[in-house]
Amino acid sequence: MPKKQSITPVSDFGEFKLIKYLTENIKLKHKTTIKGVGDDAAVIEPSDKKIVVTTDMLLEGVHFDLTYVPLKHLGYKAVVVNLSDVYAMNAIPKHITVSLGVSSKFSVEALKDLYDGIYLACDVYNVDLIGGDTCSSLTGLSISVTAIGEVDFEKLAYRSGAKVNDLICVTGDLGGAYMGLQLLEREKMVFNSDPNMKPKFDGYDYILQRQLKPEARKDVIELFEKNKIIPTSMIDISDGLSSELLHLCNQSDVSCKIYEEKVPINYVTRKLAEELNVEPLVTALNGGEDYELLFTVPIELHDKIAELHQVSIIGHISAKGEENLIITKGGTTLPIMAQGWAAFGE
Amino acid sequence: MPKKQSITPVSDFGEFKLIKYLTENIKLKHKTTIKGVGDDAAVIEPSDKKIVVTTDMLLEGVHFDLTYVPLKHLGYKAVVVNLSDVYAMNAIPKHITVSLGVSSKFSVEALKDLYDGIYLACDVYNVDLIGGDTCSSLTGLSISVTAIGEVDFEKLAYRSGAKVNDLICVTGDLGGAYMGLQLLEREKMVFNSDPNMKPKFDGYDYILQRQLKPEARKDVIELFEKNKIIPTSMIDISDGLSSELLHLCNQSDVSCKIYEEKVPINYVTRKLAEELNVEPLVTALNGGEDYELLFTVPIELHDKIAELHQVSIIGHISAKGEENLIITKGGTTLPIMAQGWAAFGE
Repeated sequence: MPKKQSITPVSDFGEFKLIKYLTENIKLKHKTTIKGVGDDAAVIEPSDKKIVVTTDMLLEGVHFDLTYVPLKHLGYKAVVVNLSDVYAMNAIPKHITVSLGVSSKFSVEALKDLYDGIYLACDVYNVDLIGGDTCSSLTGLSISVTAIGEVDFEKLAYRSGAKVNDLICVTGDLGGAYMGLQLLEREKMVFNSDPNMKPKFDGYDYILQRQLKPEARKDVIELFEKNKIIPTSMIDISDGLSSELLHLCNQSDVSCKIYEEKVPINYVTRKLAEELNVEPLVTALNGGEDYELLFTVPIELHDKIAELHQVSIIGHISAKGEENLIITKGGTTLPIMAQGWAAFGE
Repeated sequence: MPKKQSITPVSDFGEFKLIKYLTENIKLKHKTTIKGVGDDAAVIEPSDKKIVVTTDMLLEGVHFDLTYVPLKHLGYKAVVVNLSDVYAMNAIPKHITVSLGVSSKFSVEALKDLYDGIYLACDVYNVDLIGGDTCSSLTGLSISVTAIGEVDFEKLAYRSGAKVNDLICVTGDLGGAYMGLQLLEREKMVFNSDPNMKPKFDGYDYILQRQLKPEARKDVIELFEKNKIIPTSMIDISDGLSSELLHLCNQSDVSCKIYEEKVPINYVTRKLAEELNVEPLVTALNGGEDYELLFTVPIELHDKIAELHQVSIIGHISAKGEENLIITKGGTTLPIMAQGWAAFGE
């Protein structure tokens, strides 16, 4: 929660003073940023690479719950989810814009916390905040971020490039962000029924961080560059592995087969899932917000990929018309369905 | 208001089907659009020009009232207000992204109307819609647009370039959008008190259009190009002439003197202002949303500018430290204050 030492209503500042207060200490990192915040538009120097552009909106009550999301984490996450989309093109993010709709109930100090998170993400991921819009909202908090990056044309990874026999790979582990959300929701319910109860978060740091302060896989994109790996297709995992696998297969005109035992799930995710009577695999297939990368590579790259501890090979691409399948540890074969695996698996 | 012939709740579609429905007929206009909607990010081919980026958010209840704003007009306006910022850099917009937060009360048909307005603006202003985000909102409608354009470095017009003795110019006329809003609000109050009353809009088409379907000054930027005019500074008028003049003077480190009789006000604006007991000049100075351009040029360009019927010369730049002044028709000299002229003038 934001520090509550001093409370200045946003209305005391007005739009222009507020924007100045929040943006006056920006230190631009890139020489390509010709003009940042403060004019009708920002100005960027293009390179000889292609430009990628992506945008995402986060709305209070839908994407976040301010009763348990610290504003600094929220600012960080709002940037990271956009950068994740840039990395999913195998591109490097360079610039972001941030638009905020803020209710007058917000204090200037709370907004400062939100911006601290935004600036931290800018530092960690080496991007410049170059513009935005701050306006009052009659309802909840709205955050809209646009991220701009660059990539050599021949390194671009679309969703549509997967080929038969390509290896299907994911970074990191899956389902953690979803289980972190379940934990936060459970403790919120406990707190609402008895405000004297203290939330029990001990031992769950990992999944809380996965939910509240996710990271984008900058490291993996840098490893691709270093190891001369160009994925044939790539997508970031924001809606769960099932949904993203189907997007990738549909757009590539192919099918897929993956193996349950290969799907990476952290032991903390698994532990809480079992405690809450959720099948751990379901958290990976249908839980969202992991912001890991799902990608395919030619089978010739098997040994190179197998060396990367950040990456798991979970299956392979099959021909169009075959079923999209997951082979369970018990040897059962089940079709992959977006958001539908749990129901089907029962 | 949107046609109500058939009503399909947004919830019947789901996010992916909805995005497909709304974007499947996009025809890309620019060869520089390598990849539009449908991947993690859009891909653009840069030119040898500089890139400009701007973003604006419109929130229900703050920036628009759906009781009298037709959705098609709203979509159009959401794009235009962003393009206006691109033109205000003396740049040409090429690409936009649009993010929507939509309550489940919305029908697919209503969203289609909104998108029809967005696409109409894309056609009129020759820009490609290349990406976005559509998500559900628990509260009102949120629209966030990012516009990307291009400009030769030597043609860039910042807010900060005005020089002493430069002419101060505005395009079109001012105060109309504000008076259009007053008219809509008045008729809404009448309607709320007696739903049998028909709104009286006859003769006010001009100011209604200024409010509901504003245009950005693409034509003027093209005239600058044709006539080899490069403004020394420029800003678009979204918050009223006073406020924008002060931004321009502050950022250019100069002062200004303008003349009431030169400030362009349409007769319909003037007529309604008088009917509602508002000083017409106040609508121009403090009324927002005109989306005209305020710019300065060296005095040597006087004759070239005077020939352009789209432009009025309203004053000149004076040295830093002098007061920012308006000379009234009666010869009185008043300081220009953001949003403060009315109070001061009383």
